[in-house]
Amino acid sequence: MAEERSIKVRVPGTTANCGPGFDAIGIACNIYNELELILKKEGPLVIEISGEGAANIPCDSRNIVWRSIQHLLRKAKLDYKGAYIKMVNQVPLSRGLGSSAAAIVAGLMAANEAIGRRFNRGELLCMATEIEGHPDNVAPAIFGGVTISVVHDGKPESLPFLPQMPLQLIVAVPEFSLSTKAARSVLPKEVPLKDAVFNVSRASLLVAALCRGEKRFLRHAFDDALHQPYRAQLIPGMYDVFKAARDNGALGAAMSGAGPCLIAFSIGKTEQIGKAMVEAFARHEVKAKYLVLAIDKAGAQVI
Amino acid sequence: MAEERSIKVRVPGTTANCGPGFDAIGIACNIYNELELILKKEGPLVIEISGEGAANIPCDSRNIVWRSIQHLLRKAKLDYKGAYIKMVNQVPLSRGLGSSAAAIVAGLMAANEAIGRRFNRGELLCMATEIEGHPDNVAPAIFGGVTISVVHDGKPESLPFLPQMPLQLIVAVPEFSLSTKAARSVLPKEVPLKDAVFNVSRASLLVAALCRGEKRFLRHAFDDALHQPYRAQLIPGMYDVFKAARDNGALGAAMSGAGPCLIAFSIGKTEQIGKAMVEAFARHEVKAKYLVLAIDKAGAQVI
Repeated sequence: MAEERSIKVRVPGTTANCGPGFDAIGIACNIYNELELILKKEGPLVIEISGEGAANIPCDSRNIVWRSIQHLLRKAKLDYKGAYIKMVNQVPLSRGLGSSAAAIVAGLMAANEAIGRRFNRGELLCMATEIEGHPDNVAPAIFGGVTISVVHDGKPESLPFLPQMPLQLIVAVPEFSLSTKAARSVLPKEVPLKDAVFNVSRASLLVAALCRGEKRFLRHAFDDALHQPYRAQLIPGMYDVFKAARDNGALGAAMSGAGPCLIAFSIGKTEQIGKAMVEAFARHEVKAKYLVLAIDKAGAQVI
Repeated sequence: MAEERSIKVRVPGTTANCGPGFDAIGIACNIYNELELILKKEGPLVIEISGEGAANIPCDSRNIVWRSIQHLLRKAKLDYKGAYIKMVNQVPLSRGLGSSAAAIVAGLMAANEAIGRRFNRGELLCMATEIEGHPDNVAPAIFGGVTISVVHDGKPESLPFLPQMPLQLIVAVPEFSLSTKAARSVLPKEVPLKDAVFNVSRASLLVAALCRGEKRFLRHAFDDALHQPYRAQLIPGMYDVFKAARDNGALGAAMSGAGPCLIAFSIGKTEQIGKAMVEAFARHEVKAKYLVLAIDKAGAQVI
């Protein structure tokens, strides 16, 4: 019986935008949230949370994992009133590393497994996008690797691929959090056409360079003119942190999603880059730590 | 002696933008302009032209091939007052198939060969971009294949690659011509941010799908919101021609460069698509022919 089975899933954190790929490019990182789920026909709902953000995540029916499980169960026309849910979170909350996407995908994957894999990954992508509002983070969380996502007539489509180079991700995690809503509110409705062209060309170059393993073309491929210039005001010292990363060997740097995490991309020199980023933040009186991550290749997995 | 040597080069026509890749993506096509050059220390300048646009291309010092040759010679600090130049052109003039880029690259390639290959292809790209004003067409004309071009601090950089699929290009060539200047003048200075995001995501998807040979992702990858909606007024029936192409099996369709050529992308069904495009133009009282082209893989060549 489905309601008695314990399902465990592991879902990667993700970084979206990667500079020019605003609302399009995402990368899965080897930092994970784990979820254990036992569905119960008649309840109760018990949620245990440990790790990142444990104190700030609701443990009742407002919980995003539970809401995602319910979303999938409604699609499957199944009714479970309760569950035992255990979350062990590594992904920092509201920092731009896709914690909400990881939670959504974890709930969907686990529920789908519990009811006998009724939906494929493409269908999970659609549901996750319905819940999250956009596919940028949920796509790499599901598929792993680098994903390119578009939304056509409200339906998401994501192409996943693995870069042909051992790209490393150095994430500077400042102590403050930033809501995606706040980060969206500072964006203009209109932008100069030349800025749009700037990003179209850089995003295209970034994708081609990653697909082809052409490291030498990454030098200008992480630059952005569409969102970071407006959001810089929300993250003290952002461009100085970027510069510190580059000066210490990074190929490029960008906001991770809507921030406040800043992410540098490199092949080697990771500790040096991480320290330099934290020091640059410190010069602007922002306390931060850094994580050295690699690309997660598998995406969400039942374990 | 350089001035006595006859150099022959062959340069492909090109299509730029390819829908979402405005000012960034270009493709070399297997339609060629050939150039024969004999540099002369003391003149005279003799220019013979046959093929496309022969009647409309100046045969004196205003000739773009000659001006490109002079541009390169100045960089090399060499002085030749004359030349014998013979052009045999297949690329239609001012139709959006990169005829001026082909002429510029032909002049540079031939002159460079005549003086002992003093410059590499990257340096020729810089010179060609200086003359043309942007790298979109000159890059694929030089490198062949698909190119992604960015301009950083005024310097162009282009990544060339060959798509992992046998993509065919069906070009509907209307009888009227359109200047790039006119096509630029209808573009707005500012665009909605959501349109910029639309193109960033489609261009990224297009590049990834071509690099990875993922045909199924091309369905929405040729769509554009940044330039074609504004330029549609200059090309009667444009969107109907796009629709006719798609309805007859094309993966997608777009303006070729700044038009008026319209280009469909497919694997197979080329004649059917071409006829449908010409018929759709005819319904808008535009006389057109069509060409079935493949991707040129080699770029500009000394022959």
